[in-house]
Amino acid sequence: MKKAVILLSGGLDSTTCLALAKKQGFACYAMSFSYGQKQCAELLAAQNVARHFGVVKHEIVDLNIAQLDGGGSALTDPQIAVPEYVETDIIPITYVPARNTIFLSIALGWAEILQAHTIFIGISAVDYSNYPDCRPEYLEAFQAMATLATKTGVEAKPVHIEAPLLHLSKAETLTLGLSLGVDYSLTVSCYKASDEGLACGHCASCELRKRGFAAAAVADPTRYVLS
Amino acid sequence: MKKAVILLSGGLDSTTCLALAKKQGFACYAMSFSYGQKQCAELLAAQNVARHFGVVKHEIVDLNIAQLDGGGSALTDPQIAVPEYVETDIIPITYVPARNTIFLSIALGWAEILQAHTIFIGISAVDYSNYPDCRPEYLEAFQAMATLATKTGVEAKPVHIEAPLLHLSKAETLTLGLSLGVDYSLTVSCYKASDEGLACGHCASCELRKRGFAAAAVADPTRYVLS
Repeated sequence: MKKAVILLSGGLDSTTCLALAKKQGFACYAMSFSYGQKQCAELLAAQNVARHFGVVKHEIVDLNIAQLDGGGSALTDPQIAVPEYVETDIIPITYVPARNTIFLSIALGWAEILQAHTIFIGISAVDYSNYPDCRPEYLEAFQAMATLATKTGVEAKPVHIEAPLLHLSKAETLTLGLSLGVDYSLTVSCYKASDEGLACGHCASCELRKRGFAAAAVADPTRYVLS
Repeated sequence: MKKAVILLSGGLDSTTCLALAKKQGFACYAMSFSYGQKQCAELLAAQNVARHFGVVKHEIVDLNIAQLDGGGSALTDPQIAVPEYVETDIIPITYVPARNTIFLSIALGWAEILQAHTIFIGISAVDYSNYPDCRPEYLEAFQAMATLATKTGVEAKPVHIEAPLLHLSKAETLTLGLSLGVDYSLTVSCYKASDEGLACGHCASCELRKRGFAAAAVADPTRYVLS
């Protein structure tokens, strides 16, 4: 059975990716990161999602990016508050320096160890926060680098990075996931979710998620804090 | 003062890089990894070297690659013995899947956090072990990816990856280091060094190092185990 490593944050996008990988017949190896993010609800969600989909293995990698001078992001640095959503085309303070590169690199190592030739990542360049490491040109460059970096690449059996949501809007992702039977109430996207998994409803991640459910015209199962 | 992140294993090459960065006037931020390697002597050497050169900060990042199904390498998996050196053009079992990519990615994140625009890495494609992630084409691809991955890259102030030893033989690296005043007795290169930092004298890393000292016609200060 062909194997795939799935980067699983516990949010809407990565969960959809896992459902898709499963549907495509992959033996699924989920990988999450405890990287010093301020909230732990998404990791708990990732564990629930991984269990729900019956992955072969779920690795939660401990890598404290926040230890590196705060991590340079509102998601990791206690001294930088997570802002409310604003429409903008700049890279917001929630950007975590090199995060997707770090996650993909470690997933690349695991894929090579497992002799898996596919990694799934749930990035999208449509309804997104202008993060540079979510763009198609970034992904293409990572793929080229990964092929040169690895024994498996040198041997002409490279690890392919699959980003099936790259060109999908949030509503299209939701429609895809619902067609695959995803229960989005299991997922947590909020940048400042409570320990119980309640979403703030106001950060960029909440806002994009809310708009996605509205645009897809389906009920939003997200549990929000009362405010 | 311009800042640089230096990947510092505690071995001969990375120590030469640190000396060079210091000479070039950089404020030096050293980064080492406790990645599940079997021996700890190189990390102790890295601490001594970092102290010796008076780095601004020395981060030792905990990231247990060995936790990922043994790490896929003789350097991490207790079930795979470190082999003695043999002349070969295949990629040996001491290759650690995606290691340089993982290290460079985390250094890239730290560089961006620090607003450093240079990373030094001591890879060489001359007297080396055929590791794919030590080749010039790999480095070029990593650079292209890193520029697209980061806010600083998007803003046209990318982080440059410097590999000053890339085209140097081990003897040339030693000659360079000695001209910079490096005390190589501080460094540990052996793949299976004892806790006291004694080198085995027979692994690929020891062999390349020994040959380097011989070719440079300088005294080898390495402390070997009696055998």
